[in-house]
Amino acid sequence: MDKNFVITIGREYGSGGRVIGQAVADRLGIKFYDDEIIELIAKESGLSIEAVSKLDGTKTSSFLYNAFMSTQSVPLNDEIFFAQSKVIKDIASKESCVIVSRCADYILREHKNLFNIFIYAPMEARMERTKSLYHDIANNYENYVKKMDKKRADYYNYFTPNRWGDRSNYHMMIDSSIGIENTVNMLSAMVTALFGGDN
Amino acid sequence: MDKNFVITIGREYGSGGRVIGQAVADRLGIKFYDDEIIELIAKESGLSIEAVSKLDGTKTSSFLYNAFMSTQSVPLNDEIFFAQSKVIKDIASKESCVIVSRCADYILREHKNLFNIFIYAPMEARMERTKSLYHDIANNYENYVKKMDKKRADYYNYFTPNRWGDRSNYHMMIDSSIGIENTVNMLSAMVTALFGGDN
Repeated sequence: MDKNFVITIGREYGSGGRVIGQAVADRLGIKFYDDEIIELIAKESGLSIEAVSKLDGTKTSSFLYNAFMSTQSVPLNDEIFFAQSKVIKDIASKESCVIVSRCADYILREHKNLFNIFIYAPMEARMERTKSLYHDIANNYENYVKKMDKKRADYYNYFTPNRWGDRSNYHMMIDSSIGIENTVNMLSAMVTALFGGDN
Repeated sequence: MDKNFVITIGREYGSGGRVIGQAVADRLGIKFYDDEIIELIAKESGLSIEAVSKLDGTKTSSFLYNAFMSTQSVPLNDEIFFAQSKVIKDIASKESCVIVSRCADYILREHKNLFNIFIYAPMEARMERTKSLYHDIANNYENYVKKMDKKRADYYNYFTPNRWGDRSNYHMMIDSSIGIENTVNMLSAMVTALFGGDN
């Protein structure tokens, strides 16, 4: 690859976004960040890894919880988000990478070589995938998938002025039910076509 | 290419969907159908090319118009749509191709190697593109673009049970404001990755 670039991946729950992102990063030989970022956020914020993990992907919603958890004027979730923003900008300035979720598309909106992807799939495919990965995690898988989507939407809509899943936020959106391997092949080919490469 | 496949392209007005589709077809060495299909529809329906052109992309909306235009029990737009469906299925059964608009994604929903793409772009980019291509076509380009989008949506929503532009209808959606050439490069690379090819 002849350019430094960042791929961000937003995704519906159960669409395989994380595995796809990891595989694309491996294929392109660039770094991958999902939960890998938590340690960096802890370091940046001075909070414990446990605290960051616990609040990861949650918006500031409970005044009481934060009031008890934090003696500072800024709610803990917001503090984590600020640290996360700094960490993500630092990473992006140094190396090509794939970053999953965490409003990275919005945080990096001024970044030069940025490509924002949203991965989706029909509900049936996502229920099926969730079931096969996590047995007995829910009685009603449709409700579970919807609840997880709502959590992601709430987080994104709280920390950005945009709407989660709205196509105007992304350079492309892709349905992973065409197959994880197919999706990885297509995305790798696309990114190589866009940012250049040896292959 | 080692498989017979069909790429359908739906697109927002002013996003460059037609030129992109044409260039992707050229790049892949497969046939391209947009207005090229009108003559085939005329032949299939027995109507004149002029009549088909006039009603092309319009839904059945005016009872009176159709009552005067047609002595048959089926409205003329519906008749054209039936002929169009047959023509599109015929084409798809014979050769790999790119088909723009015309509810081809829905008409071909049972087709084996089908890849449905939707091309979009921010309103500013689409107004800019429309202005540069068609000088003085409108006083208010935003209204004009919105009106053309509405016509496309009305047509799609009338002849299919789906909603135009809803991601669940498409395998992928892409923002062409990253550049027409970039979009063509990316789509060509993706399709080759999905359906195979020599390059």
